[in-house]
Amino acid sequence: MGKVTATYLVHEKKSDLEKKAEGIALGLTVGSWTDLPQLEKEQLQKHKGIVEQVTVLEEDEKANEYLGGSRKRGLIKISYPSANFSPDLPAILTTVFGKLSLDGEIKLVDLELDTALASHFPGPKYGITGIRRQLGVNERPLVMSIFKGVLGKDISFFKEQLREQALGGVDLVKDDEILFDNPLTPFEERIKAARQVLKETESITGEKTLYAVNVTGKTRNLRDKARKAVELGANALLFNVLSYGPDVLQELAEDKEITVPIMAHPALAGASGSSSLYGIRYSVLLGKLLRLAGADLVLFPSPYGTVALKHEEAIGIAKALTEQSGSQKKVFPVPSAGIHPGLVPQLFTDFGLDSVINAGGGVHGHPDGAAGGAKAFRQAVDAAVAGISLEEAAKANRELRIALELWGGVAAK
Amino acid sequence: MGKVTATYLVHEKKSDLEKKAEGIALGLTVGSWTDLPQLEKEQLQKHKGIVEQVTVLEEDEKANEYLGGSRKRGLIKISYPSANFSPDLPAILTTVFGKLSLDGEIKLVDLELDTALASHFPGPKYGITGIRRQLGVNERPLVMSIFKGVLGKDISFFKEQLREQALGGVDLVKDDEILFDNPLTPFEERIKAARQVLKETESITGEKTLYAVNVTGKTRNLRDKARKAVELGANALLFNVLSYGPDVLQELAEDKEITVPIMAHPALAGASGSSSLYGIRYSVLLGKLLRLAGADLVLFPSPYGTVALKHEEAIGIAKALTEQSGSQKKVFPVPSAGIHPGLVPQLFTDFGLDSVINAGGGVHGHPDGAAGGAKAFRQAVDAAVAGISLEEAAKANRELRIALELWGGVAAK
Repeated sequence: MGKVTATYLVHEKKSDLEKKAEGIALGLTVGSWTDLPQLEKEQLQKHKGIVEQVTVLEEDEKANEYLGGSRKRGLIKISYPSANFSPDLPAILTTVFGKLSLDGEIKLVDLELDTALASHFPGPKYGITGIRRQLGVNERPLVMSIFKGVLGKDISFFKEQLREQALGGVDLVKDDEILFDNPLTPFEERIKAARQVLKETESITGEKTLYAVNVTGKTRNLRDKARKAVELGANALLFNVLSYGPDVLQELAEDKEITVPIMAHPALAGASGSSSLYGIRYSVLLGKLLRLAGADLVLFPSPYGTVALKHEEAIGIAKALTEQSGSQKKVFPVPSAGIHPGLVPQLFTDFGLDSVINAGGGVHGHPDGAAGGAKAFRQAVDAAVAGISLEEAAKANRELRIALELWGGVAAK
Repeated sequence: MGKVTATYLVHEKKSDLEKKAEGIALGLTVGSWTDLPQLEKEQLQKHKGIVEQVTVLEEDEKANEYLGGSRKRGLIKISYPSANFSPDLPAILTTVFGKLSLDGEIKLVDLELDTALASHFPGPKYGITGIRRQLGVNERPLVMSIFKGVLGKDISFFKEQLREQALGGVDLVKDDEILFDNPLTPFEERIKAARQVLKETESITGEKTLYAVNVTGKTRNLRDKARKAVELGANALLFNVLSYGPDVLQELAEDKEITVPIMAHPALAGASGSSSLYGIRYSVLLGKLLRLAGADLVLFPSPYGTVALKHEEAIGIAKALTEQSGSQKKVFPVPSAGIHPGLVPQLFTDFGLDSVINAGGGVHGHPDGAAGGAKAFRQAVDAAVAGISLEEAAKANRELRIALELWGGVAAK
């Protein structure tokens, strides 16, 4: 039969939590129960939502003050039978958090699909293993960088910047998420240029680099654009999934002709992830949902920079992307923003071997340029994996030494 | 050239607001400015974001306490040149609130497209005028009702319930948003059954009724499903737009073969609309965005029921849907939840002639059944339009009298 189980954090004004839970389980499925005739109960049994668990938590004084009164705080866990919805993410989201998202102080904090339902979501086509195989890199976190200032520049600027980053040794380069199709650096031209540049740099460094081109535009054209990208030799795609919808990502991920990894960008995620009282917890929004939808890599704010998530939130996303989950492949977590080489030991401690270390300013702002920045990251990664301190590694590595002088080093906590 | 102008409410920890605004205007466009060489400035001028206005507001003590420290509160208004993005909603959302949504306490509270940019968004195909023309109803708010408890029931139950509602005189009936395609009441069967039932009821009452069938399933199939619905005689569509993405609604609205009004449901809206500190203000999320995307009617929580918006928020949505806005047609506001006949004078005062009065329990819970409930609403609407009190109107109208006895009457404030 199948079911989806959702867990909600509530700050409830009126009802006690058991009553609230029962109200949700019925209200979002069969409507009412106790007064139904026996025959109707039998008929509706398989559609009825089930209260799986109610956990009362201590009241939160700050929340009470902010909301202007005492609130019963707790976790409510409810399962909804698959018989009630079609096996697609819009139907699941509408069922578990459609009307309910509007019902006072309520946050969706977990979502579990049982095996039967999960079978409709193949998940990532490549995931961590597939991307490692493409790159031939197994024993260290990957290093990634972001184009900087391409807006308003032409294709020669784009090529030059890509070359620098690739020569420095990054494994992946991504478009800025706000780079759309445009006359100076058109989508197809970027792909062709990148293909040529990365062929050259591979012949020099002996290392592959993936370039994630930003797939943008009208929803109805995305599949063909992505297919065209692959045909032209693109080796990865970037996608602003939340500006479209998770099901659109799933459509791209499941397309048999789109044979490259898809990197999901967290643009817009803050709109529903930021509040502690409302919305969708990041581990669901950027973790479970995007894995179900088939992202191969997921970017999210690191817990270090100025645009930062709470440490536990960032770790929660990474966990959702990488923990065992049925037959779904693991997804590369890409904690981003505020990353410089001195943070690598901390990143390695927090996110482990199977993560991507991603930087913009930390690569481009290196006094030796992007190539120097990329080298500094690779040196820091090698040190972290080998268990050598950055200070020690910096002695033999000029680029790392310069980076540490500029940004400082942060010992892992 | 064109531009989009976004207004943000910020509770800023570190920078002063001018500096924060400058950081956004540059950070989300050209990256940096002051240190650029003159030549590059000239090259990038047309891509640079502009700080249009910074308004410092009084600090909010409750917010300060909740956030654990003093925050500079204010409104920041920034315009982004259209040269930076493609003219589609995902690109606009990513530009104005992609990365920025993750940047601390920031809420998108307004969004304005200039005429050049707005020309890419035709908006509603029918809107208020078109729907009134279809129904032949001009001088009163419309009355709408929602199916109740169809989940787990078969098509004969569906037909019976539709017949009752239509005979009672509602102008529109919508599917429950959690009714997906299912074996008991398949999508195509509902359309065919509704067509037959509504033909019969029209021959009895002399009044047209629109039935909005819920268009659900995988994104890639929606257009063909909607076209098929029209082919089978559907006269309206319901769409859970936020579970898909606003651009998917736009695709349906712009399709020349989908020649029926589209009703947008607010499922999931609470996830990004509920917080006063983060996310997207409802007047943008359910108002401006859905009008741009082409919704003909938009449901949103009324300010009266248990699932309620603040009064100003609900009014703000209705205003965004109905105020003059370039060449875009006006959209029917449908304040929903907690509506019973006794609230009609208040609804009429708050939302005016050009609104839809929508009820579920307030129709089905009437002691005379759904037909009685629908009649009570129509009687209440006629009274409100004529400026007669409900008490007075109830003397000559049995169904209204019974409704007022059950739910009470609420005089307009």
